[in-house]
Amino acid sequence: MTIEDKIKAMGCELPPAPGKGGIYSSVKPLGKNLYYISGCGAYINGDGPQGKLGKDLTVEQGQEAACRTILNYLSVIKAHIGSLDRIKSFVKVLIFVQSEPDFYEQPKVADGATGFLVELFGEKIGAPSRSAIGTNALPGNTPVEIEGIVEIEP
Amino acid sequence: MTIEDKIKAMGCELPPAPGKGGIYSSVKPLGKNLYYISGCGAYINGDGPQGKLGKDLTVEQGQEAACRTILNYLSVIKAHIGSLDRIKSFVKVLIFVQSEPDFYEQPKVADGATGFLVELFGEKIGAPSRSAIGTNALPGNTPVEIEGIVEIEP
Amino acid sequence: MTIEDKIKAMGCELPPAPGKGGIYSSVKPLGKNLYYISGCGAYINGDGPQGKLGKDLTVEQGQEAACRTILNYLSVIKAHIGSLDRIKSFVKVLIFVQSEPDFYEQPKVADGATGFLVELFGEKIGAPSRSAIGTNALPGNTPVEIEGIVEIEP
Repeated sequence: MTIEDKIKAMGCELPPAPGKGGIYSSVKPLGKNLYYISGCGAYINGDGPQGKLGKDLTVEQGQEAACRTILNYLSVIKAHIGSLDRIKSFVKVLIFVQSEPDFYEQPKVADGATGFLVELFGEKIGAPSRSAIGTNALPGNTPVEIEGIVEIEP
Repeated sequence: MTIEDKIKAMGCELPPAPGKGGIYSSVKPLGKNLYYISGCGAYINGDGPQGKLGKDLTVEQGQEAACRTILNYLSVIKAHIGSLDRIKSFVKVLIFVQSEPDFYEQPKVADGATGFLVELFGEKIGAPSRSAIGTNALPGNTPVEIEGIVEIEP
Repeated sequence: MTIEDKIKAMGCELPPAPGKGGIYSSVKPLGKNLYYISGCGAYINGDGPQGKLGKDLTVEQGQEAACRTILNYLSVIKAHIGSLDRIKSFVKVLIFVQSEPDFYEQPKVADGATGFLVELFGEKIGAPSRSAIGTNALPGNTPVEIEGIVEIEP
């Protein structure tokens, strides 16, 4: 079963890769077999949740937003690498969670993204090193933004 | 035409590399031919814009601050690598924009930095992977801070 | 004298590696001899300072929190690599400081971590490239969070 089959079997769908929101590369090589993936938000086809954790969204809604964001992240990788089955390791993710100043559960929100990766790819490939950071404002009012590094089979 | 000539032809000037604001290395090797560049702010010769987007600065002023910041970033690379003509790829930038909680146009501000890189180095070398993140407070009240990774010709 | 002996001689103690606060890997390989370390907070054995710089903590208390955080960071490296004496370079740290919107001395706070590394490992190994970023909210109300990259002797 391919990774894309597995995404469908989990009741999800890989969205089309999101358009770029500025002047940058969506993916850039970092030495050999490693790629840096630009920050992705939670919008799919221009539509998605907005707002801050601790005010506009519950932790569960934040986890859903994190899952949408990682689907976007995967779609960007697929568009540039060809197939998700070539991923050898999710090396690192930096997850920003748009938060009120008294919201401290960023790790639970971030689990909505990394939990999905681990379910899909298993612990060894799918569990990246991670930071989950609160911040007061993210582009376009997205609740979650994720950037990171992946390693691809040579 | 060297990159430095091109900077002058664009009506800009490469500033002296900024002094360090603490205990760290301005540049550190990341494996082979890759370098991590420490966070740079918008001050040049101790002078520069201050304040938050969405309150103290317009988007245009933020873009100007981002352009000053990337000039500092380039001056740090030059001081450590010798020549900007040796840069093979701007691999990654992480751009923090000091923002009010209701300011959501960080990508437009960040374009002031990455647009300058692309004009100077072309799309292939100059367009890094990027995240543009809002945050409530940056060192010394700088509106923009940029860190990143560059690849140098061996 | 081993690095751990030196930590004791400095009157400090390497804590047990902190438990993970979510779904991720504490350490993940980044190519050859390089490792990405997940974000660490200031809690040791479930206990530690909480609050924001500019309101709840002085700069000195923030530096203490940064020092505790880097001790956690070292304990994570030790648990995964075996010995701190194998560290060849602290390549990069990204230091988040939980701040009020009018607190701008994140670099001074961050020096509590990187100053400790330089005292312990010397300038060449111990001084990483660094960014010190303010943010409005961090997991569990920790005042400081640090992630980064280390290079290990082959």
